Amino acid sequence: MAVIGKVEYFKGIDHIPYEGNGSDNPLAYKYYDADQKVAGKSMKDHFRFAVAYWHSFCGQGTDPFGGATQNYPWDQLADPLEAARAKADAAFEFITKMGFAYFCFHDFDLIQEGNSLKESESRLRQIGEYISEKQRESGVGVLWGTANLFSHPRYMNGASTNPDFRVVARAGAQVKLALDITIALKGENYVFWGGREGYMSLLNTDMKREIDHMGQFLVMARDYGRKNGFKGQFFVEPKPMEPMKHQYDFDASTVIGFLKEYGLQDDFKINLEFNHATLANHTMQHEMAVAASHNMLGSLDANRGDYQNGWDTDQFPNNLYEVTEAMLVFLQAGGLQGGGINFDAKIRRNSTDPADLFYAHIGGADIFARALLTADRILKESPYEALRKDRYASFDTGKGKAFEAGGLSFTDLYELALEYGEVPPKSGKQELLENIINQYL
Amino acid sequence: MAVIGKVEYFKGIDHIPYEGNGSDNPLAYKYYDADQKVAGKSMKDHFRFAVAYWHSFCGQGTDPFGGATQNYPWDQLADPLEAARAKADAAFEFITKMGFAYFCFHDFDLIQEGNSLKESESRLRQIGEYISEKQRESGVGVLWGTANLFSHPRYMNGASTNPDFRVVARAGAQVKLALDITIALKGENYVFWGGREGYMSLLNTDMKREIDHMGQFLVMARDYGRKNGFKGQFFVEPKPMEPMKHQYDFDASTVIGFLKEYGLQDDFKINLEFNHATLANHTMQHEMAVAASHNMLGSLDANRGDYQNGWDTDQFPNNLYEVTEAMLVFLQAGGLQGGGINFDAKIRRNSTDPADLFYAHIGGADIFARALLTADRILKESPYEALRKDRYASFDTGKGKAFEAGGLSFTDLYELALEYGEVPPKSGKQELLENIINQYL
Amino acid sequence: MAVIGKVEYFKGIDHIPYEGNGSDNPLAYKYYDADQKVAGKSMKDHFRFAVAYWHSFCGQGTDPFGGATQNYPWDQLADPLEAARAKADAAFEFITKMGFAYFCFHDFDLIQEGNSLKESESRLRQIGEYISEKQRESGVGVLWGTANLFSHPRYMNGASTNPDFRVVARAGAQVKLALDITIALKGENYVFWGGREGYMSLLNTDMKREIDHMGQFLVMARDYGRKNGFKGQFFVEPKPMEPMKHQYDFDASTVIGFLKEYGLQDDFKINLEFNHATLANHTMQHEMAVAASHNMLGSLDANRGDYQNGWDTDQFPNNLYEVTEAMLVFLQAGGLQGGGINFDAKIRRNSTDPADLFYAHIGGADIFARALLTADRILKESPYEALRKDRYASFDTGKGKAFEAGGLSFTDLYELALEYGEVPPKSGKQELLENIINQYL
Amino acid sequence: MAVIGKVEYFKGIDHIPYEGNGSDNPLAYKYYDADQKVAGKSMKDHFRFAVAYWHSFCGQGTDPFGGATQNYPWDQLADPLEAARAKADAAFEFITKMGFAYFCFHDFDLIQEGNSLKESESRLRQIGEYISEKQRESGVGVLWGTANLFSHPRYMNGASTNPDFRVVARAGAQVKLALDITIALKGENYVFWGGREGYMSLLNTDMKREIDHMGQFLVMARDYGRKNGFKGQFFVEPKPMEPMKHQYDFDASTVIGFLKEYGLQDDFKINLEFNHATLANHTMQHEMAVAASHNMLGSLDANRGDYQNGWDTDQFPNNLYEVTEAMLVFLQAGGLQGGGINFDAKIRRNSTDPADLFYAHIGGADIFARALLTADRILKESPYEALRKDRYASFDTGKGKAFEAGGLSFTDLYELALEYGEVPPKSGKQELLENIINQYL
Ligand SMILES: [Co+2]
Ligand SMILES: [Co+2]
Ligand SMILES: [Co+2]
Ligand SMILES: [Co+2]
Ligand SMILES: [Co+2]
Ligand SMILES: [Co+2]
Ligand SMILES: [Co+2]
Ligand SMILES: [Co+2]
Repeated sequence: MAVIGKVEYFKGIDHIPYEGNGSDNPLAYKYYDADQKVAGKSMKDHFRFAVAYWHSFCGQGTDPFGGATQNYPWDQLADPLEAARAKADAAFEFITKMGFAYFCFHDFDLIQEGNSLKESESRLRQIGEYISEKQRESGVGVLWGTANLFSHPRYMNGASTNPDFRVVARAGAQVKLALDITIALKGENYVFWGGREGYMSLLNTDMKREIDHMGQFLVMARDYGRKNGFKGQFFVEPKPMEPMKHQYDFDASTVIGFLKEYGLQDDFKINLEFNHATLANHTMQHEMAVAASHNMLGSLDANRGDYQNGWDTDQFPNNLYEVTEAMLVFLQAGGLQGGGINFDAKIRRNSTDPADLFYAHIGGADIFARALLTADRILKESPYEALRKDRYASFDTGKGKAFEAGGLSFTDLYELALEYGEVPPKSGKQELLENIINQYL
Repeated sequence: MAVIGKVEYFKGIDHIPYEGNGSDNPLAYKYYDADQKVAGKSMKDHFRFAVAYWHSFCGQGTDPFGGATQNYPWDQLADPLEAARAKADAAFEFITKMGFAYFCFHDFDLIQEGNSLKESESRLRQIGEYISEKQRESGVGVLWGTANLFSHPRYMNGASTNPDFRVVARAGAQVKLALDITIALKGENYVFWGGREGYMSLLNTDMKREIDHMGQFLVMARDYGRKNGFKGQFFVEPKPMEPMKHQYDFDASTVIGFLKEYGLQDDFKINLEFNHATLANHTMQHEMAVAASHNMLGSLDANRGDYQNGWDTDQFPNNLYEVTEAMLVFLQAGGLQGGGINFDAKIRRNSTDPADLFYAHIGGADIFARALLTADRILKESPYEALRKDRYASFDTGKGKAFEAGGLSFTDLYELALEYGEVPPKSGKQELLENIINQYL
Repeated sequence: MAVIGKVEYFKGIDHIPYEGNGSDNPLAYKYYDADQKVAGKSMKDHFRFAVAYWHSFCGQGTDPFGGATQNYPWDQLADPLEAARAKADAAFEFITKMGFAYFCFHDFDLIQEGNSLKESESRLRQIGEYISEKQRESGVGVLWGTANLFSHPRYMNGASTNPDFRVVARAGAQVKLALDITIALKGENYVFWGGREGYMSLLNTDMKREIDHMGQFLVMARDYGRKNGFKGQFFVEPKPMEPMKHQYDFDASTVIGFLKEYGLQDDFKINLEFNHATLANHTMQHEMAVAASHNMLGSLDANRGDYQNGWDTDQFPNNLYEVTEAMLVFLQAGGLQGGGINFDAKIRRNSTDPADLFYAHIGGADIFARALLTADRILKESPYEALRKDRYASFDTGKGKAFEAGGLSFTDLYELALEYGEVPPKSGKQELLENIINQYL
Repeated sequence: MAVIGKVEYFKGIDHIPYEGNGSDNPLAYKYYDADQKVAGKSMKDHFRFAVAYWHSFCGQGTDPFGGATQNYPWDQLADPLEAARAKADAAFEFITKMGFAYFCFHDFDLIQEGNSLKESESRLRQIGEYISEKQRESGVGVLWGTANLFSHPRYMNGASTNPDFRVVARAGAQVKLALDITIALKGENYVFWGGREGYMSLLNTDMKREIDHMGQFLVMARDYGRKNGFKGQFFVEPKPMEPMKHQYDFDASTVIGFLKEYGLQDDFKINLEFNHATLANHTMQHEMAVAASHNMLGSLDANRGDYQNGWDTDQFPNNLYEVTEAMLVFLQAGGLQGGGINFDAKIRRNSTDPADLFYAHIGGADIFARALLTADRILKESPYEALRKDRYASFDTGKGKAFEAGGLSFTDLYELALEYGEVPPKSGKQELLENIINQYL
């Protein structure tokens, strides 16, 4: 089942079994039972869990105050292609041992960027062939691909929003290659996260012009993709700040407005990340509800932030409340549009044992499984949904319905208000609803 | 010049003169010289300063932990109409002594709400007549009117977004009357601030349905206003939260998306408040730039927040940096669309001397005047604007221009990137620009 | 069992039974089984739950943007003593129906403040007699009393830290009376929460002098209390801000330093509130660990904040993670020193049904009970405690032990470091520990 | 004047002159006139400006999302000692061209850490000799030295608070060497900033034991330093978080309590950083007032944060309000105890021109100079200080004075309160004071 390369990187850890919540085995799933049906679909199909190539196979535990703590054996080879193949071996071994069916990647996660565009192109082609082979062997797919338009110094002033057109051109060339390899690896979706699309200082920035450039760039990306056979979904991933002081894709609402402004709404949906939601001063369930209400709930980056720290900690998800409320929106929206659950999370800098990567992903998968089961029961067994629907019953018939249909004027409302007199208060029943959630956890 | 009623409420304080920045007189303007021309217009016409009726004449220094500290003499009469007239006298005395030309109001700032809609209507009509007379006498206009749809218990679950249609009807009736009196008082604009349009808990909320109702409601308000002779601008004032956990008019970007979604973009612009910007984790200059880039920079609520406190402190503006950067955007945008500068700010709970209200407004007017003068000099005398424009020069001609015009594809960018090779870095010069700002302060 | 006064205020709701977590009855405990033993003590004795008189019987649903929504029947009498007796009847009915054994109060929660100190003193004496009688009848005790030194306008510039000595004197007189009635009602503890002890602006503040005054004031309170037979614990309750811009009792660490500086450490301990911890950018478990490590974990105010809102929302506790981690520290510290769990929480402004107050307190008690059970199992059954202890094993013997005992110098460390060479990394196992917590929830 | 090494690194930029605020020269001081007397002392002696070796000569513009953008010529040599000498040349050239008299350093800023403790020791000795020579040539001194106990992976779980004693020993050995070189370079002070002294997760942490270790460690450092001839001041620099979730030196108040608890108060003072103050939800002037009120205002790290971003942006100071209010406390406290103003600030990632480093430091020095001049005038010419003192006049004589002296009891206060009756309110005059500040800016 597990696809091992020349070297077995995670010796002593085999395929992670489901053992149920009575198990004390830290290397077993307690809730995630891939084939178990919930709300008419297997957990596997609900979630389509993906491993994030960058955090899990390229991350090394660095932070702004310290160097690498995680020196992985697949990172020791000098030759870029050999190193990339070793990393792919490690990745496929891990993914298959976890029993996941997907991964997500940036172009230069797969292989180190070359010294020229041409060299990068050639490298991507070569590692792409190797990975395709691993995919055939394992059945593992690409949930989404993307281009890293933020790490290289050339993007320090932005990629598609760079004030220098030559950098914009280079960014376009890079996305072209990233789309090419995503298509080659049968990627189901393609993501834009604009880590440098924003500003450090408004003083040197023409925001309007930069956002116009970003819109134009995405139009060109869409056109190139569609012309070259990409049938999947495009996603934009909002984040309000960091690394920039302000990023243009602030939150779901901002991104939806942007997509409509540039005519992108038919090809793009939203990829939401928990930690980005909280950095934008929203809950994740709020962001999901916003996206869902515009039919744009595309995919999820699963992680969590720290409510006392103001940066993207990208910790593994472990909060049953956050994930259960997310799963309520998820089920009510009928799931995701094209995407899945990508663990855009990194083990802590001081998590240096090979097993830690497994614990982290197991914990993450289990919290989603448990939250889905909980949300499903809340929807089916509790008065939660009825209480919520009932609140709006006055709009289902009569004058309320006429109001919704646009059939009333303010003069009508004035007359009705005279007729109704003072309206008795209705409790919002928030504490009761909160107790219901806790009852089902 | 000052219009005094039966009683003089601010005895010992006369019309506030301009004395220049050499003056030590705390009751004189040091920078605000109403008729001084800056960038081709008098300060008076740039700013159109307005006093906020609610904070300055209805506020009493309460906060969530304590009762009234400011017991104003105009608040002592038992009869609602008599009390309202006394308050209007105080307001017009203050406004004219300040030398301002405008005020802003909520319906029930002007007079206490009645026990029924009919009684409220009658009260508003009566106080409206009295205020019209004061306007004739003083030349003071209404910058904007609005309806208080958040204080009455009936709105505890929302006004236009209330789950009970009867409350929505009542809200509509109230806005009808507020529009009526705004028209009667020749109000130049009308504002919607949705203090209860949001949620306390997403658990009991159908966000999509509520926002649809809010859209429908504004459409009806617009139609009623236009039909009844209101030719001014409608504004929405964003605020991300407080009193609700989340408010639908989160920030400029969210509101612009909302207005377009419901076809309101031709009649509505944005009224931005400094403290609401910072609560939404934006700078005010950012919010202004967003609004301006959509041609929606309507009006400003002048105040400031406290960067260590997470609620709307509504303090008087006193930060030259915030206001200067705001004035840079202001001048670059060609000013406001229909609105002015409304001091939506309250003196501190422990500012209990009558003079404190003057100090606060004088400080506010002076900071705007000084910031405008500074911004004007930065734009005219410093390299600030040239440095900013230059950064984007590569889009003014050639391939960059073609990119902007939509004339290039990703294949073109790929070819250009091959041609350009690695692009040399260009400093963003942030520290230099910051020094320039400081040089002109 | 329930002690009803002349009127039954919560008709239709009887004593809240424990029905276990299989019950769907919203008016039953699912986890809080008062007499169940956990870690050697009954739940009742662990928690000593108290109802907060102010939120539950004086609160009316107001917020800074709106008036009362909760107009309780016991608030309708004009005569202060009659009204106070009705409120006491409602309170004792509620407390006994909940099955709680305690309440907490501010002086003027019990009865409206008089127009003079003398009148207040007389009112407090009279209502004290009435409440003593209710206590005898019901067995309900006072967990702690306190004085409201923040609501009256006279305290707008501070109480013990007021720049005007006359206000300090009045504050002292008020605390004297509050101590008197706390003693009369056999209060087990006395709390200082310094809502106005801080500053609005540092510009007008001599912080050193104000804090010295606060220290002097607490010394005098301690001396008065001890002299007059108060044998209980004094508590200080930290809060970083709100209503003031900054409050002197910022957090546990600041308060502990303050208490030691003024020689108060033998009579005072800390009363920690969840929402105040998070406003100070700490977790509650952090604050509890700080207090416990100084042997000062006195009492807890149970509630929760909103991580997206920057003010004291004082919501009822419902977060199993927060409370479970709190209960871990609680059990490891051997419980509280003199105090209990006071529900310093208010139902939402739109929770207007009488049953809402019950739902809220039931949910709160259940979350503590469930968290205690969970924490107890984590400590007894899981490797959590062993993993934590093991990390520090190198200090239990040999050179590490000598270091702890102060027996080594830097020269010794230098020699040891040469001997040890580079130290291999040890994983912190954070993800594993987080999974263990989730396993036991 | 400028001390140039083998290579001139900042060609074309000479010694920065003072040209006054009429100058448009971006490479001249507009306010910082080193020998100008303010409040009885030259600006040079007030500030003792220091350059931070790490940001200015070791930083490369990296951030968590991208690699080096600033590839300095002095960083190109392979041999560690040669590279270190080149860096020292660049540093002394820059410092002397700026006209500053100090720098601050971490041990491994000066030279790359060796592969063993012995090798590091030898390297530090060698570069120390070279730098001593440069000091003799230039007259530039060391404001303070420190050890980098946070970047090396061995410290991922803490340095003095590491759960593994062997790492604590290594940290002690490293501080020993750092003290040795600080003494050798005639460093005037020595700093502890505990970047890893805190926790990532409380779940695996024994906070009490770790803080005890930290206390013991500082005691040993003090004893070693004093024994080996270090006569300067020790400083602790507070920071609440980042890189850890929580750091033990949270803020000034916490550190002062800690120092007293471990008997360190006679040898240690506080080094405050602007950005750390705001991360701890304080203003810098607050932190300075706290330190000053305990006679512990030792030194300042000058920079600024971004109020919309929740991490340590370490930007150059440019906010006249923050710095003016800091200078008010500074002058009132009689300056710093042993320290100076260290620019712990980094130019932005996209500030890639050599001149940018000059602009940044010039802007920083000018803002301090201007703020000092402003604060001095406010104290001497305005009613600011008198207004503040007056507020507390009731404690200068009579009963208020007796209260301060501990001569009154609560019974006395009760009698006095009866005598005083209700106290009339006194305005805090906050708006007036804010206007005064603006008048003098
Ligand atoms: Co992501
Ligand atoms: Co992220
Ligand atoms: Co406003
Ligand atoms: Co506001
Ligand atoms: Co409390
Ligand atoms: Co609270
Ligand atoms: Co620093
Ligand atoms: Co810093």
